Amino acid sequence: MSSITRPSGRSADSLREVRLTRNYTKHAEGSVLVEFGDTKVICTASLEDKVPGFLKGKGQGWLTAEYGMLPRSTNTRMDREAARGKQSGRTQEIQRLIGRSLRAAFDLEAFGERTLHLDCDVIQADGGTRTAAITGAMVAAYDAFSTLVESKAISAMPLKHFVAAISVGVYQGSPVLDLDYLEDSGCDTDMNVVMTDAGHFIEVQGTAEGAAFDRATLNSLLELAQAGITDLIALQRKTLGLR
Amino acid sequence: MSSITRPSGRSADSLREVRLTRNYTKHAEGSVLVEFGDTKVICTASLEDKVPGFLKGKGQGWLTAEYGMLPRSTNTRMDREAARGKQSGRTQEIQRLIGRSLRAAFDLEAFGERTLHLDCDVIQADGGTRTAAITGAMVAAYDAFSTLVESKAISAMPLKHFVAAISVGVYQGSPVLDLDYLEDSGCDTDMNVVMTDAGHFIEVQGTAEGAAFDRATLNSLLELAQAGITDLIALQRKTLGLR
Amino acid sequence: MSSITRPSGRSADSLREVRLTRNYTKHAEGSVLVEFGDTKVICTASLEDKVPGFLKGKGQGWLTAEYGMLPRSTNTRMDREAARGKQSGRTQEIQRLIGRSLRAAFDLEAFGERTLHLDCDVIQADGGTRTAAITGAMVAAYDAFSTLVESKAISAMPLKHFVAAISVGVYQGSPVLDLDYLEDSGCDTDMNVVMTDAGHFIEVQGTAEGAAFDRATLNSLLELAQAGITDLIALQRKTLGLR
Amino acid sequence: MSSITRPSGRSADSLREVRLTRNYTKHAEGSVLVEFGDTKVICTASLEDKVPGFLKGKGQGWLTAEYGMLPRSTNTRMDREAARGKQSGRTQEIQRLIGRSLRAAFDLEAFGERTLHLDCDVIQADGGTRTAAITGAMVAAYDAFSTLVESKAISAMPLKHFVAAISVGVYQGSPVLDLDYLEDSGCDTDMNVVMTDAGHFIEVQGTAEGAAFDRATLNSLLELAQAGITDLIALQRKTLGLR
Amino acid sequence: MSSITRPSGRSADSLREVRLTRNYTKHAEGSVLVEFGDTKVICTASLEDKVPGFLKGKGQGWLTAEYGMLPRSTNTRMDREAARGKQSGRTQEIQRLIGRSLRAAFDLEAFGERTLHLDCDVIQADGGTRTAAITGAMVAAYDAFSTLVESKAISAMPLKHFVAAISVGVYQGSPVLDLDYLEDSGCDTDMNVVMTDAGHFIEVQGTAEGAAFDRATLNSLLELAQAGITDLIALQRKTLGLR
Amino acid sequence: MSSITRPSGRSADSLREVRLTRNYTKHAEGSVLVEFGDTKVICTASLEDKVPGFLKGKGQGWLTAEYGMLPRSTNTRMDREAARGKQSGRTQEIQRLIGRSLRAAFDLEAFGERTLHLDCDVIQADGGTRTAAITGAMVAAYDAFSTLVESKAISAMPLKHFVAAISVGVYQGSPVLDLDYLEDSGCDTDMNVVMTDAGHFIEVQGTAEGAAFDRATLNSLLELAQAGITDLIALQRKTLGLR
Repeated sequence: MSSITRPSGRSADSLREVRLTRNYTKHAEGSVLVEFGDTKVICTASLEDKVPGFLKGKGQGWLTAEYGMLPRSTNTRMDREAARGKQSGRTQEIQRLIGRSLRAAFDLEAFGERTLHLDCDVIQADGGTRTAAITGAMVAAYDAFSTLVESKAISAMPLKHFVAAISVGVYQGSPVLDLDYLEDSGCDTDMNVVMTDAGHFIEVQGTAEGAAFDRATLNSLLELAQAGITDLIALQRKTLGLR
Repeated sequence: MSSITRPSGRSADSLREVRLTRNYTKHAEGSVLVEFGDTKVICTASLEDKVPGFLKGKGQGWLTAEYGMLPRSTNTRMDREAARGKQSGRTQEIQRLIGRSLRAAFDLEAFGERTLHLDCDVIQADGGTRTAAITGAMVAAYDAFSTLVESKAISAMPLKHFVAAISVGVYQGSPVLDLDYLEDSGCDTDMNVVMTDAGHFIEVQGTAEGAAFDRATLNSLLELAQAGITDLIALQRKTLGLR
Repeated sequence: MSSITRPSGRSADSLREVRLTRNYTKHAEGSVLVEFGDTKVICTASLEDKVPGFLKGKGQGWLTAEYGMLPRSTNTRMDREAARGKQSGRTQEIQRLIGRSLRAAFDLEAFGERTLHLDCDVIQADGGTRTAAITGAMVAAYDAFSTLVESKAISAMPLKHFVAAISVGVYQGSPVLDLDYLEDSGCDTDMNVVMTDAGHFIEVQGTAEGAAFDRATLNSLLELAQAGITDLIALQRKTLGLR
Repeated sequence: MSSITRPSGRSADSLREVRLTRNYTKHAEGSVLVEFGDTKVICTASLEDKVPGFLKGKGQGWLTAEYGMLPRSTNTRMDREAARGKQSGRTQEIQRLIGRSLRAAFDLEAFGERTLHLDCDVIQADGGTRTAAITGAMVAAYDAFSTLVESKAISAMPLKHFVAAISVGVYQGSPVLDLDYLEDSGCDTDMNVVMTDAGHFIEVQGTAEGAAFDRATLNSLLELAQAGITDLIALQRKTLGLR
Repeated sequence: MSSITRPSGRSADSLREVRLTRNYTKHAEGSVLVEFGDTKVICTASLEDKVPGFLKGKGQGWLTAEYGMLPRSTNTRMDREAARGKQSGRTQEIQRLIGRSLRAAFDLEAFGERTLHLDCDVIQADGGTRTAAITGAMVAAYDAFSTLVESKAISAMPLKHFVAAISVGVYQGSPVLDLDYLEDSGCDTDMNVVMTDAGHFIEVQGTAEGAAFDRATLNSLLELAQAGITDLIALQRKTLGLR
Repeated sequence: MSSITRPSGRSADSLREVRLTRNYTKHAEGSVLVEFGDTKVICTASLEDKVPGFLKGKGQGWLTAEYGMLPRSTNTRMDREAARGKQSGRTQEIQRLIGRSLRAAFDLEAFGERTLHLDCDVIQADGGTRTAAITGAMVAAYDAFSTLVESKAISAMPLKHFVAAISVGVYQGSPVLDLDYLEDSGCDTDMNVVMTDAGHFIEVQGTAEGAAFDRATLNSLLELAQAGITDLIALQRKTLGLR
């Protein structure tokens, strides 16, 4: 790792302080406050005893996600999407990513004709809201499915893999892990990576915002991401009391 | 007060535990988490250096409010308003109430051509979200205007009155203060009252959901509300470090 | 009553001339033109042989209301809500109020799985459109339910109470009844009251638009309203040929 | 003319009773209730001292129209367009027709940078609402422009032609004038014709709803229409006190 | 025919070069590229095995049309209707016209409970897009129904008439056939005519954009249109390999 | 490369036949039909002499993209987005990708306060529509900027890099290039790659639709993509007559 100075003062391969608080609100089957430093996202998992039309009668379940930001979760107040009457392209892109990532974590054929709704609402934003949301939603979803196991509605946790997500980027020429807002605004390349506990990829989304990037840079970024995700999955398991 | 047993076990004239946490999030000029028991609302106050078109060039300011609920802030998940593409009538009614109430608290001609945006987002709902929102938004707005005083952008706090709000209702035939969700669902009459620190009314909104109510009942409800609001305003002032 | 001079020249406790014209249009089961002075609202009541989804199979009926203003019913032309693509918060607030008020007037369990749609369209506005709408819709609804009684679809009029509504306000320091537009624009406090023929309250909605108001003022306003509503209900009954 | 029996009992070339009531509502610069038998439409004309963006600075005016139906103006209640959030294709087609027709009646370059908004709202529908709307809007527009002449804002009435409109159709094989709802539902061909006082065409819109129609039929329909429009324009002029 | 010089250099009664290319795209049951000179429209016909709610269980079919223009099919780029969130009044008017015209061509009771969707998308516009769309959609619809005949889903082509459409107008005082964009922009009267192979009218829509037009002019326009449509229907039949 | 049999019969590293047809429609400054086998997309580039509000007065340009599919470009007809009133999340995701990719190709500070609008409309879909769109839009944009160079509005082509895009995926366990619809539906991992003529990455978007993928697979996919993009850029240059 190079010796550039990050605005956050972290070393290139350091995560921010990550916290996962279960049972954050009382109504949802799963409810987690996830914090990646100053980024704070409430992730709730809600079970519903039906599936969308295209799956009716097929004996399998569905998992879907929605994402939102409170208007003043950001430095400058944004318009409220409910008041404007539509979700932005960015919002839709993020909630589609969260949904795909979590559908890869669970076996949709193993929890009956039910839908799990994941709601990821950003209370405070400081970069990396989508990766925090995926990481927190994993724990909320696990808790929600646990209620089905406990009530014997299903016989076992429908888990395929643990998944977590992190951002990586090139800041002042050097690859760094888990960008906060200041670093993200100043970086050339931004990549979000979603991986499983087996070290395999679910999603790789890299964008050159300034200069295009080469294969060597891509490789460095992926290595940083893999190390970070390993730590995040360990924290998810510990939070859930799994060994 | 009668001796009915409330689901909450409180006496008829007791508020739930009320907490006001300032600086709850870091970006907004004012940011308060208000809790009325299990009802939790994030109130942020955001200053903007312009006014709506109908006020341009008049040398006065504006104050407006928006309200939202996280989809799983309630017992059963609600559709996300941003995804449905419109705010419900209930949402609009509540945000108009919050806006009118807070415009009565401040002198719109005393803070220049600025807009104060109040965002009240319900994280967890257990009855009384609109009264909690008004009570918390008062403190968030005060903090936001304080930043203008501190930066000498204005010479004095543009305060007319402190305002706070509480719900009252008739539960099993008896008037009670500050209904939680269980009490609210089972009550005949529901009234929301907004008052100033001088004991005057800003808003009185009473609805007979079951039997119509008579003048004597109305009087009892207003007395309960006045006592509750006196306590809430004392708490607002204490929270702000005012005597 | 004080001796202020109202723009309308009326005494403080005088209603405007109120007219209720039944069978105003020919298609609806109930159709009433209601006039409070220069305020003119067409209220139609339409029966439909089904109920909304949340009531299906419960053996009870539903009653709902919609409200609109013709674009040039007002002094300055307003945008047409159908062209703008949404109803304003004010429109939704008013139609929710009309619906709640009329649901208090009729026994929803006594007219089968039917929906009564009340449409209140303002042809000419001069203050008090929502109270005129409630007062006129009561008569239109009565006429519509009469068609069910006449056809023996139901055995008796599903009436709980007659209801009517009136506005009161504080104009130049004095409480006055039934504000027209000029008075409404210049008043400090505006209150809409919906009551039953037993003198009980269905709705009380008071707003301090200027100075907050005290209990004594509130009491005076409620007394004015009660007297006005007594007269309106007498007129409703007379119009319907009831003693 | 053939000797078929029309549901209305009228002869093939008879208009329904047509009434034009000026100053029907009090706020608009022009306000006309037009009745073609049981079809009743309120037409208001509202002047605004600005033009749409595409005409700014060109020294000419604009004229535009909007059309709506009260939900229970028809036999079966229709959804309210403002509640559904959009105007139907039929509504848009009709309001575009009204606008084009009236733009042909007035000289857009002779009333300054102003917009005349015509609002045609159907209170009761019994066939022919669009032709009634055009015929009534002509008178409302004339009245509105008269206020500009009277206030000397313009030097002369910016009139090109009087225009009026009527429907014709083939009912049970015979051409008939001014179809009411029953006749319209049962007819094969429906044509709306807009003409000037010089007997020239502004719009001809014929649709074969059942069998296609031939040139001879088209000719008969146009003759019926021309006679009807001559009578309508005479009535418009008489209503306005013109010789 | 007069001897004016048209911008296109054509004689007054000349069509542009018309081309109908079948099987233009591969997925649809019928797919035609229709070209009227530089106007190019892709018409696809898609069969669906269900009907709209209002026809369910009646044993008949339905046919409906949609119309769109690519944003840069025109000289100046237009906003994309999908991005603006609604179709313009012009678009709706045109797609309603296409639907009515083609419903007159086929026997809706002769192809079972199916819907034929016609999509007419303008790739390049040079005047006359709606008449080209109707003329091309006729062939696409014929091809789609042929697939039902070939698969023996129905026993015979459900054809009532061939239909085609053409525009006519008054350019510099003279009636001309099939206006291109330059001629259309400069013309006083614009008429779209839809006729059957028997020479009968399905639709006649004439609009005076400048001076109103008289009966003699109308007659000349209809004669031009009839001759043009005869040629178009001959081309449709030839393209389909019919004699 | 492995020896699996692709449905298309191509070898793992073969592109489909790619065609780029310039000047496909006549109005746009750049207009290209791009074909990747049976996938056909019309890409137009439209210049506008203004920039969005957030760039006004900064002396630089903007480039933005929109994407759409004709309703029957696909095997089963899709709803028309303009009729539904909104663009899907997928559509927005794709048009944001196209915009970012092409903004990386051109120097936004070198063509003045102008906006280049890229419209990519899918006429026929058979997999890979977004990569075809990016590849074709590059040529359309180049042609549009050429008109500015030719008219001497700018002094040189504002080019940073040529960019092109291709999809890669894992089909039956083996990495393959440029998936058609059949291959795409059956593949486990799908990746879209956008690169420059220098072999650097602009975008990498990989998604595990079935099993998660490992680093070795990712490497193979990126190598396939790089080879394909090199060929595509050579074809773009040849099409434009560049050496």
